[in-house]
Amino acid sequence: MGAKDDPSSLNRRSLLRAGLAGAAVTTTGGAALAQARPEPAKPDPMVTEIQDWNRFLGPGVEAAPYGKPSKFEKDVIRRNVGWLTAGTESSINFTPIHELDGIITPNGVCFERHHGGVAEIDPAMHRLMINGLVEKPLVFTMDDLKRFPGRVNRPYFLECAANGGMEWKGAQLNGVQFTHGMIHNVWYTGIPLKTVLNEAGIKSNGKWLLVEGADAAAMTRSIPIEKALDDCMIAWAMNGEALRAEQGYPLRIVVPGWEGNMWVKWLRRIEVGDQPWAQREETSKYTDLLADGRARRHTWVMDAKSVVTNPSPQKPLKYKGPNVLTGLAWSGRGAISRVDVSVDGGRNWQSARIDGPAMPLCLTRFYVDFDWNGQELMIQSRAMDSTGYVQPSKEALRKVRGLNSIYHNNGIQTWLVRANGETENVEIS
Amino acid sequence: MGAKDDPSSLNRRSLLRAGLAGAAVTTTGGAALAQARPEPAKPDPMVTEIQDWNRFLGPGVEAAPYGKPSKFEKDVIRRNVGWLTAGTESSINFTPIHELDGIITPNGVCFERHHGGVAEIDPAMHRLMINGLVEKPLVFTMDDLKRFPGRVNRPYFLECAANGGMEWKGAQLNGVQFTHGMIHNVWYTGIPLKTVLNEAGIKSNGKWLLVEGADAAAMTRSIPIEKALDDCMIAWAMNGEALRAEQGYPLRIVVPGWEGNMWVKWLRRIEVGDQPWAQREETSKYTDLLADGRARRHTWVMDAKSVVTNPSPQKPLKYKGPNVLTGLAWSGRGAISRVDVSVDGGRNWQSARIDGPAMPLCLTRFYVDFDWNGQELMIQSRAMDSTGYVQPSKEALRKVRGLNSIYHNNGIQTWLVRANGETENVEIS
Repeated sequence: MGAKDDPSSLNRRSLLRAGLAGAAVTTTGGAALAQARPEPAKPDPMVTEIQDWNRFLGPGVEAAPYGKPSKFEKDVIRRNVGWLTAGTESSINFTPIHELDGIITPNGVCFERHHGGVAEIDPAMHRLMINGLVEKPLVFTMDDLKRFPGRVNRPYFLECAANGGMEWKGAQLNGVQFTHGMIHNVWYTGIPLKTVLNEAGIKSNGKWLLVEGADAAAMTRSIPIEKALDDCMIAWAMNGEALRAEQGYPLRIVVPGWEGNMWVKWLRRIEVGDQPWAQREETSKYTDLLADGRARRHTWVMDAKSVVTNPSPQKPLKYKGPNVLTGLAWSGRGAISRVDVSVDGGRNWQSARIDGPAMPLCLTRFYVDFDWNGQELMIQSRAMDSTGYVQPSKEALRKVRGLNSIYHNNGIQTWLVRANGETENVEIS
Repeated sequence: MGAKDDPSSLNRRSLLRAGLAGAAVTTTGGAALAQARPEPAKPDPMVTEIQDWNRFLGPGVEAAPYGKPSKFEKDVIRRNVGWLTAGTESSINFTPIHELDGIITPNGVCFERHHGGVAEIDPAMHRLMINGLVEKPLVFTMDDLKRFPGRVNRPYFLECAANGGMEWKGAQLNGVQFTHGMIHNVWYTGIPLKTVLNEAGIKSNGKWLLVEGADAAAMTRSIPIEKALDDCMIAWAMNGEALRAEQGYPLRIVVPGWEGNMWVKWLRRIEVGDQPWAQREETSKYTDLLADGRARRHTWVMDAKSVVTNPSPQKPLKYKGPNVLTGLAWSGRGAISRVDVSVDGGRNWQSARIDGPAMPLCLTRFYVDFDWNGQELMIQSRAMDSTGYVQPSKEALRKVRGLNSIYHNNGIQTWLVRANGETENVEIS
């Protein structure tokens, strides 16, 4: 897809108003439009084209009791990378973040990561057990959970620890969907986890939780009790409706700001213990192998990160003149306080406009309105959070963590925009 | 669906913790659970049941590029009322607000009101024309609009003026989906309407807009210029993804806080004029006929309103003991400042817990956690907004507006909960 030339006079911000007006008139025939009221008696070709749509009585309100996107949006889908895993049941697909805007991820395109496929659970038969170091072991039905006082709704991002993991050794995947699409952001409905833990009564030596899924992988992770009693939730709804099956229907744990693998789906059991369990997914996986052979473990928090979603390789620049650059920023330690953007590979930076509110542990949308005169761009974004932390370069990350890592790559991303508008994933050193 | 008896000791709030624990243990076999770790070697019947789910390797990440709700959620759908209109193309279906939680309405269940069916528009062919009393008539492509600076994302409720209209003369429809379901609440992505109006340049005598849809009904409404320049948007996305076809794909106008009929879908033209147009949908329809034969017109703002969504006729009470009452409140004049709830038909009121943030011109979720001992309840809710306005009784509304009205019924709703938990739409005088 190449760039469309506009008159060069449009390339200065001072002429922005004229620029967009000019583009529009070029498209449609200019001054004749002053009289072009869309009345059937006036057969202006453009007007006839517009009129076309309402020759047809469209579908009625019985057509889709549960609606779907327009057929013209067929490319707004999750995508997977075939070579990445042996099968699709233990695999990943990616959120099309280059096709979305705002901060809500629609439930239909929230990325999936499964270790044993999607469990299909009848909620009437589902149970949540609390056992281990508790005063009173308990089992809850879904109805029981929905009767607890203190129900809450909260928006949180969920990012897989491996988001961007394939890029540790250098730019590989040509699309922000693949480099940064293991993230979604929805409003969860549920109750604080501490509510059910207090119901069971944690014994004084109860310091860790094992959370266990009902999927074929029986996913298990350890969570320290401090986090569990702080802001974790058990949730049964996302963006207003029941969890989708692929997101843990009927019940998942929400671990705000921490790596997605800990947000166990199809949650069926919580065991209280006195130490972490050292399960597969917190030892051989989801630990960070350093250059000297040692591994960082318990690296749960997702540090501040950002990425420009448009332009990006799947969404190149199409026009010279006015353009909107946009992207997402997030931090597992607090709210996003600032996002800076560079178009020259990090030599100069300007602050992006944050489309508020910037909520803690929640995706934050930013914009930069700019004019493009056709020069090559090296686009980067750099997030800062409310703790003062600044998103590092990939180079700085590699100096500390080496090249063995898969997880927790929050380095700054670079997109090269070529003179024809095509956009590529690149690294600059 | 009747109520399940719990031990009467559970009916006091002071025993809430014991109550829920007791219910859970009753369900599943009590003290034996202390040892009931879900290991295959221990054939406890309940545990076997839980284990069932992970015998099966579920579907993988290629199964649904655009996902759908679980098959167990098949009742969470829009519903229409067959007798209400002659055909389904000029009709209404209703949001299942009794099945939802939080404040986001998922795109798949946002209510629909069409006057000529759903237009199916190729966005590449769609145009927005600005004409009339402007310095420079303009036509924009969708790409043009997406290149404007100042893109924003905002959450707003959209309520049909006729929401609750069938209830003016008394309780008729036995379900909150039908009495209050002509409402939805999504985040819109777009640009301020004033951006494109300023681009065209409004002449000094330009005081009104005519907004026109590209559907078979060519829906048209007049909007005063003050509102247009204040907070109106032209939007192409909802909840992060493109507008759904039934919500105006690829473009609609957003008129925050004002009646839904003005939020013209499939927006193709905006004409600037010096007076309102008096189109069909603002004269014979969407005006309020008073008892003396005069009609109120230009009654655009949706006043503060609320309703309890659970319990409600479609979601009766199932259990004695702890229960969660929840509902929605909104105001077209500002933010919701308080919601009071009565369970005795308005004799006594308590303030509900608002699950924040309570954003202006946006649905607001409220909860009351309560114990039910099986007595009959007369449940009501009453919203107050940031202007100090208090939602009126239906009786007070009728005194002022008579019985001819269809639109702008924001009266207090009453649900009767019977001793067996069944819940009915009633009126109290």
